[in-house]
This record gives sequence, C-alpha cells and structure tokens, in this order.
Amino acid sequence: MSSNYLNFRNSVPWVILLLEALFLIHSFFLRLDGLGSLHSSYPEFQDVNHMVIFGFGFFLMVLRRYGFSSTGFNLLIIVLGVQCSVLVEDLLVSFHLEENEGILKSIAKALISMAAVAISTGAVLGKTNLVQLIVMTLVELIVFYVSRWINRRYLQVGDHLSLMHVHLFGAYFGLAVSCCFPEPSPRLDKNRSTPKSDLFSMLGSVFLWVFWPSFNSLLAQSRRKAVLNTYFALAVSAVTAFMLSALTSKDGKFRMTHIHSAALAGGVTLSFTAQMISHPWIAMILGLLGSAITILGSHCLQRCLNPPLKIHDTSGVHFTFGLPAVLGALAQVVLLVIREWTNSSSLGYLVLLHVGAFCQTISLALITGFITGFILNTRLLKIIPVSKYFEDQFYWE
Amino acid sequence: MSSNYLNFRNSVPWVILLLEALFLIHSFFLRLDGLGSLHSSYPEFQDVNHMVIFGFGFFLMVLRRYGFSSTGFNLLIIVLGVQCSVLVEDLLVSFHLEENEGILKSIAKALISMAAVAISTGAVLGKTNLVQLIVMTLVELIVFYVSRWINRRYLQVGDHLSLMHVHLFGAYFGLAVSCCFPEPSPRLDKNRSTPKSDLFSMLGSVFLWVFWPSFNSLLAQSRRKAVLNTYFALAVSAVTAFMLSALTSKDGKFRMTHIHSAALAGGVTLSFTAQMISHPWIAMILGLLGSAITILGSHCLQRCLNPPLKIHDTSGVHFTFGLPAVLGALAQVVLLVIREWTNSSSLGYLVLLHVGAFCQTISLALITGFITGFILNTRLLKIIPVSKYFEDQFYWE
Amino acid sequence: MSSNYLNFRNSVPWVILLLEALFLIHSFFLRLDGLGSLHSSYPEFQDVNHMVIFGFGFFLMVLRRYGFSSTGFNLLIIVLGVQCSVLVEDLLVSFHLEENEGILKSIAKALISMAAVAISTGAVLGKTNLVQLIVMTLVELIVFYVSRWINRRYLQVGDHLSLMHVHLFGAYFGLAVSCCFPEPSPRLDKNRSTPKSDLFSMLGSVFLWVFWPSFNSLLAQSRRKAVLNTYFALAVSAVTAFMLSALTSKDGKFRMTHIHSAALAGGVTLSFTAQMISHPWIAMILGLLGSAITILGSHCLQRCLNPPLKIHDTSGVHFTFGLPAVLGALAQVVLLVIREWTNSSSLGYLVLLHVGAFCQTISLALITGFITGFILNTRLLKIIPVSKYFEDQFYWE
Repeated sequence: MSSNYLNFRNSVPWVILLLEALFLIHSFFLRLDGLGSLHSSYPEFQDVNHMVIFGFGFFLMVLRRYGFSSTGFNLLIIVLGVQCSVLVEDLLVSFHLEENEGILKSIAKALISMAAVAISTGAVLGKTNLVQLIVMTLVELIVFYVSRWINRRYLQVGDHLSLMHVHLFGAYFGLAVSCCFPEPSPRLDKNRSTPKSDLFSMLGSVFLWVFWPSFNSLLAQSRRKAVLNTYFALAVSAVTAFMLSALTSKDGKFRMTHIHSAALAGGVTLSFTAQMISHPWIAMILGLLGSAITILGSHCLQRCLNPPLKIHDTSGVHFTFGLPAVLGALAQVVLLVIREWTNSSSLGYLVLLHVGAFCQTISLALITGFITGFILNTRLLKIIPVSKYFEDQFYWE
Repeated sequence: MSSNYLNFRNSVPWVILLLEALFLIHSFFLRLDGLGSLHSSYPEFQDVNHMVIFGFGFFLMVLRRYGFSSTGFNLLIIVLGVQCSVLVEDLLVSFHLEENEGILKSIAKALISMAAVAISTGAVLGKTNLVQLIVMTLVELIVFYVSRWINRRYLQVGDHLSLMHVHLFGAYFGLAVSCCFPEPSPRLDKNRSTPKSDLFSMLGSVFLWVFWPSFNSLLAQSRRKAVLNTYFALAVSAVTAFMLSALTSKDGKFRMTHIHSAALAGGVTLSFTAQMISHPWIAMILGLLGSAITILGSHCLQRCLNPPLKIHDTSGVHFTFGLPAVLGALAQVVLLVIREWTNSSSLGYLVLLHVGAFCQTISLALITGFITGFILNTRLLKIIPVSKYFEDQFYWE
Repeated sequence: MSSNYLNFRNSVPWVILLLEALFLIHSFFLRLDGLGSLHSSYPEFQDVNHMVIFGFGFFLMVLRRYGFSSTGFNLLIIVLGVQCSVLVEDLLVSFHLEENEGILKSIAKALISMAAVAISTGAVLGKTNLVQLIVMTLVELIVFYVSRWINRRYLQVGDHLSLMHVHLFGAYFGLAVSCCFPEPSPRLDKNRSTPKSDLFSMLGSVFLWVFWPSFNSLLAQSRRKAVLNTYFALAVSAVTAFMLSALTSKDGKFRMTHIHSAALAGGVTLSFTAQMISHPWIAMILGLLGSAITILGSHCLQRCLNPPLKIHDTSGVHFTFGLPAVLGALAQVVLLVIREWTNSSSLGYLVLLHVGAFCQTISLALITGFITGFILNTRLLKIIPVSKYFEDQFYWE
C-alpha cells in the first residue's frame, strides 16, 4: 500500500505538468486585445480576485491540521481553473461561438466561475487528494460552462445572471461528489476546528463579507443597485446569524461556525436578485431569510438528512451556499411574478423559463457531481485511506 | 445566580430580534435613489468598510482569550449601527430636516460614525455583555448624531468636520462608560496579551494604518490634500512610536502596544485638519506630537490618572484615540488663528465657534457616557461577574 | 558586554530622532502641489502601499520567534525610507535636476523603491540590529537612486523600467550585505519556521500575489498590458511551484517555502517586460521559467553555492527575487533582439544599452552591498552576538 502511495504521489507533478503544457500550447492563440478599459473596473476586479484567492482560501481553513492544504490547494486550483476558463472562452471566441469581450472580462468571469469550485472543494475538504481535486476542478468548470450555455441559449438567462448560479451549482455539485466518499469515523477529532483555525477562518469570512458587494456587482448592468442591496442583505444576515445562533444552541451561546456561514448568506441569497430589487427592505428580508435558512438548515441537515444519506459535508457548504441559493432562486421567481402580474400573457412563460434554469442547473450539478464522485473513487484515483483524511502531513513536508 | 445568567443569555437573541424588526419595518420607506455615482468613490468606500469591519475587529484582538468576541461582536455592532444610522438619516430626509445625498453616502457616513462605537468598545472590551454593548451602541450613535447636529446647526461646523469628531467623541464616551464598571483584579492575567494575540492585533493595526488616508479623505472637499497630509502624518507617527517606545521602556526595548497605538496617532491627530494644511511639514509635526502624546500619555495615564479615578481602559483608547484627537482640535484652532491673523474682526468669533464645538462634543460625550454607564450597570443589564471578564467561553461554545 | 548592549540599545531612539529631525527640517521646503489627479490612480496606489507595508511585513514572518520584529521593523524602515525618498526627490526637483511630477507620484515611486529594502532585509532577517537596518536602508535607497540615475542618464532606460530593477538590486545588495555577517550555528533551530509562522507568511504571500499586477503596472505606460501579462505569469508560476516542489522533494510532498517564493516568481520575472509583451504565452512561459529557476535555485544554492561562500540568506531572497530578476533581464534582451531583428543597424546598440543597465545595476548592488556589510560589521554597529540572532526578545518586551 505504501508503495502505492508513493507511486501515486510521484504522479501528481506530471498531471500538473501535462495540464499546464496544454494551457501553454493553447495560449499561443491568445492575444491581448484593446477591449475593455482598465480604469472602469480594475478596483472591483481586484476585490473579486482578492476574495476568491484569499477569502475562500482562509475561509476554508477550518480544520485543525489542514491549514496549509486549505490555502495552498485553493491557490493552485484557482489559478489552474482561471487559465483553463480563459482559454476555453478564447477558443469559443475564435470559432465565433461567443462574442469577444476582452481578456480582463474573461478573467473576471473565470474568477467568478471558480467560486463554484472553491465551494465544492469545501464539501470534500480534507478527503480528496490533489489529483482528485484537479480532476474535479476541470470537470466542474466545463460542466458549469455547459450549464451556463444551456441557460443562455435556451432559457433566455442573461450572461451576468447565468454566472450568478455559481453558488447553487458549486454547492450541489460538491455535495453529490462528497456522497461518493466514504464517511470518516465519527470519533475522529481531526475534522474539528481549534480556536486558532477558527480565527484564521474568521479572517477569511470577514474578507468574503467585505468584498461580496463587489462580487455581486462586478458584471451587473445596474452596479449601484447591486452593491447597495447586497450590502443591506449582508448586514441583516450578520445580525440574524447572531440572533439565531444564540437561540438554537445550548445555553444561548454563539457558535463560531454559525457566524462564519450565516453572515455570508445574505450575499448568496441576493446573487440572483441584487440588481433588480428597488426597495432595500426586500433585500433585507431576503438577507434575514437566507441567514435563517442557513442556521436552521445547519441543525436539520447535520442531524436528520446527512446521517441517513451518508453525506459528510466537511465545511457545511450545503447550508452555507446551497440553501440560500435555492432561496434566492425562489425569491427571483416570486419577485418576477409580482412585477409582471399585470402582464399576464407572458407571465407563465417567464416563470417557466426561470424555474427551468433553476432545475436545469441543480439537476445537471447533481448528476454530473455523482458521476464525478464515482470517477474520483475508482481505483485509479482513490488513494487516501480514511485514516489519513484531514491531514496536512500527508501532502506537506 | 446561574439561572440568572441563563435567563439573561436567553434574552440576548430577543433583543437583537426586536431591533432588527424595528429596522425592517422602518426600511419599508427606504428607496434606492439614483443619487451619487458609484464609480467616483466606491474603492474608497470599500477601504473604509474594510477598515471599520476588519481593521477595528482585529485591532481589538489584544486579549488572550477574547479573540472570537473581539471580531465577532465588532461585526455585529457595526452592522446594527450602520442600519440604525442609515434609517435615522432617511427618516430625517423624509421630514425634510436633512437634504438627500444618496444611500451610498449615508452608508459611508454611518461607517465613519461607527468608528466612535468601535473605539468606545475598546475601552470596555471584555467587561460588557452583548446586551450592554448593543444598548451602548444605539445610545452612542444617537448622541453622536445629536452632537453633530448641534455642531452643524449652531456652531457652523461643516458636515465632514462634524464627522471627524468621531475619535474624540468615541474615546471620551467610552472612558466615561468604563468608569462605571467595577475594576478587574490587578492579579488577573486574562486581560494581558499573548504574542499570538499581539500578532493578530498587529494585523488589524496595519490595516487601519494603510486605510487611514481613505478614512480621513472619504467625504473631504479636498481629497487629495487630505490623503497626502494624512499619509505624511502617519509616517512620522510610526517613526516616533518606535523612538519613544524605546526611550520610555526598560532596557530600551520596544513595547508592541506602543507601536499599535502610536503608529495610528498621526491619522487621528490629522482628522480635523487634513484637508486644510497646505504644507506637509505641519502635518508631519502634528503626527510627531500626536505620537508623542500617545506614548507619554500611556505612561502617565496608566500610572497616575487611572488608578485614583478607578478607570480601567482595556485597550487604552484614552491615549490611542482621545489624546491625539484633543491635540488635533487644538491644532485646528492654532492653525485657524495663524491663517486668519490679518482678518482680526472675525478671528475671535471663529475661534469661539471651534472651541465651542470641541467643548460641546467632549462634554456631551462625557455626560452621556456616564449616564449610559450607570444605565448599563443597573441590575437589569449588569450580569457578568468580574471573575468572568475577558473570557470568550462565557459567550461562545 | 551587557553594558555594551544597553548603551547601544539606548542609542537606538536617538538615531531615529536625528533622522526624523533631518526629514522634518527638510520638509519645510515641501509643498502640496496640484499635480497628478487622485482619482486616476489612488486605488492602485493603495494596492502598492498595502503590498509593501502589509505584504512584505507578513511575508517575512517566517522565523518562529521573530514575528514582532518582522512586521514591526518592516513598518519602521518603510516609513523612514519613504520620507527620505520623497524629500530627496523634492530636493532634486527644487534644483531643477528632476522634473516635478507631484507628491503622490513621488510617494508611489518611494514605495516601489522600498521594495528593494524590504527584499534586502529578508536576506539579513534576524541578524541585524535596528541601527544596522536603518543604516542599510538609507545607504541602499541612496545607492539605488544613483543606480537609477545612471541608468536613465547614460543608458536610456525609462523611468518606469529603471524602478523595475528594484528586485534585482534589492536581492544582490542584500546578499552582499549578508556575506559579511557571521554564519549562525547550523544546529540552531531558531531560524526555522513553525506551522504557525508559515501560515502568517502565507497570508503575506497571498497579499503580494494578489497585488503584484498593481505593482508592475502602477507607473507603466501601458497599464492594461502590464496587469494582464503579470496576472498570467503569476498564475503559471503558482502552478509550476506546486509541480516542481513535489518533483524535487522527498516522497513527492510539497514544501511551503517553495510555494511562498516560487508563486511570486512570475511577477518578479515580468517586472521588466510586462508592458511590452503582446502575446500572453510569452508571459506564461516566462512565469514558468521564473518559477522553475526559483525552485531549482533554492536547491542548488542552499546545497552548493551558499556553504562554500558562507552566505546565510535567511528568507532565501537570492532564489525568490534575485534569480527570477536575472531571468527577466535576460528575457528583456531576447525579446528586444527578436523585435528589432529586421532593424539591424540599431540592434547592437540597443542590446548593449540593456546589458549595460543590467550589469551596472547588479555590480553596483554587489559592490556597495559588500561595503555596507563591512560598515555594518565594524565595532561601532556590530552588537548582537550570533547566539542572540532570530530572537524577538532581544528587541521587544
């Protein structure tokens, strides 16, 4: 078995090399065009870059012995994914299947898409080896691209909105993948957090919180509305997080993991609707509901749903990103119905399109997630024994 | 006693819920207007947002066992305060008592005002329970609003300048509140810092240092001047901090708390005058004096003033924010006298106005601070025994 | 000996005071002109400010007992250096030796120049006392200024490009200085890192990584190109870092120090050429080569070159910044040859100029570095015994 490990570990760099070589060959055809001005969006672009690389990296640092891997592997898969995504986009542009919007915008879209992978990584954190993680990244990126393409081509979803399905897709893809992994022993204490790891994770959380308005508004048509609504929703969900954390835990104490996840729920819930809401109270109510569903979900799922289904969702992406995104999609339909109520001729059609986009995204995520999970657990790739889960030492000197 | 705790703790979420419900009902009247462009100030807005949420949160992480509460409670009270402040402002606009400047500017002003609360929190850090903290936040916000209104209405202080009294107000309000709390035992070691907590606090400090020019310039008329003067003052005060820390401590060693507080003194000192100074050397001298007064103050206050007055100022806000702000107010008057020397007719009147604004702010802060302190220590709210001060475990699982 | 220490330590604040007094006197002549608009570059300016103060400060936090000094001394020398640099620049402007470009641009240039000092500090980290560090800072700044002046005056190097020699200069100056310090005992474990210090260092690294495109583009003519090329190069070098770290270490494990240093190699390599490359694949190849040279260099240098030459390069600046910068300079010449191939008349001359600038910079850095090292090790300044190396306790209470 030990020689098996070694052989496998020795193959990791070659997999990376192969991929990078592919990207390099591909990049011969990439050109720096003059499209898109740097001034107008560079600061927001940097916010999103910072958020995805730094925020998610430190947000995932919840396990006591997995800090190096959380931040390090996050950096690696983000840069791999961004390159892959930019080059795929460029390929499609050169075949005239997409219109050219400039590389800066391509990178921005790639970074937003990578949030899906970062979220999925959270579900299988500590259980996948690096090759599994890379395979998952590439498959997920491509499937998310296909899902976006279906949404835009057949379901009249705009470009920005199709990207905002990223949380929904990432969470359910990750969950489906994590179903296929064997459950770690419940007596294991390596998958718990320490106060130190929680502080680092808080650092990442606060970064995500601060930069979330930039994330929701980067490619929106009405950026001002998107920023303000997201800000209000985040504020209310942070307040609700404290309230419900005290209400649902023993002795009225707060639980740090509740705060981590529920404070961000407002941003996730608003991802679909941030740019179309014109009354902040709607955004605030959505933030409240998002936060509530996150905390109630964290109790229900961990007690009722996960044990029978044998899902082990390491950093709780189902309730952190999955449930608020479902709520957000629902809210989008409700808002649409209210707005188009008078115009009853097209209402049914529009609702159908939105529900269709939601169902398409979630079912594609679940199905391809299961398939990916099975592939990752074939003999070729499945190498870490359950006893070595959640250990930096397995990968780092 | 124990059941008393539990009853109290169980009331915390309901207080938060009540508040949030109030905000939500209020927010029905809030509208997203088209006022104020996003492009021109969004990056600076984000700097201030980052500074108040992240910078102050980690800056306050000085106590060895109070890291979760420092960052967590800071996030909670900031978001509560911002909502409260935005809605009060909107209410006044709708009664035509204030002119409408757009919500983005309202949030920016709310964030700057919240710096007062973050500073006051520093004075009572670890000694208040969460309900006390929330009551203090709301009272302080409203009183600061009243103080600003008096300054603007009767003392001809401009809008930006009235906001810049935030450090002065926050520090003396916090001190007055902390007077009413029983002093912790001097043998207690929980209110000391560890190297680890000092490193996290350094992280917050450096964030505050880097973003302070944005804080002083966000709403200034002459933003360029404000940025440059603040930068120079911060640079000189960081240098002076090291110099005086070595001069005043045993064996010529540096003390980390000196560096934390005195490096920021330049920014606080310049808050009133950053936009009116046209020679950087004046800003630099003020930075030097601010830093000197901080470090000398930290020795004098902790040895001479605090013990007889029984003030226990956990993170030293009196010398970190209070004294430099007093110096800044003084400097403003001196600079005014020099500039208007030739125009002797209006000089006396102008000086009177400035001194009046200063005295009004500080006395209102002290008086209402004492009253708030007494209210917080009534039987209804005062629950933590002194032995449980400075403990995360009291609030967090 | 002990009294010697004390006397010395007591002199530290006076040295700082003397310097600051000089700056203050000098600053009387400094004026805040209206040159340069704040809007166009303030966010990028803040990125570089953040990167130099925060990024380098935490990047250097690799030693287990040297966290306070890494961040604290970094802040001190950066602010001293920026003041010195701004005032020297202003002096030259007032004698009409330089043209006036506004103070904001002066500070930006000063911050970029200070990256050289931060890099040199990395080479002697933990071995210099504070007075040695300050002397080194001032000498290095002035020599770098002279080097830039020679490059611009006699070798037709543009202003932006002359600043981009900062990594080359900083690394070799630091190495030359570190040659003159006695080597610490190889059995000493204080110059190793712990997982905690590595996590803080990772935090600094990620900040540097995210802000590097702003650093390379702040003063470039073609900012958009510079940002995009740097981003691609950084992405490829992060991937290569993981690949080669696994290939070159035992058992295929990753080594954290490899990731820290090699992920940044792309940014360093591209510093000269970021704004002139029009095909991203060239930037990507350069990022790959930069990362490869960093990791291979780290093995070769630490085994073969450093022991015989008795160089002890604490945080590995030779391979982190030195070698990629050499590669970048080489790449610049090669790209020039390719571009000007048809225009053979001026080709030789242009190549000569570029090679001259490179040789001038590196030789001036090495020569003045040696001289500075000797000065720092004279009896007057050399105070710390080797046994007290790498200890915060020597400087901090």
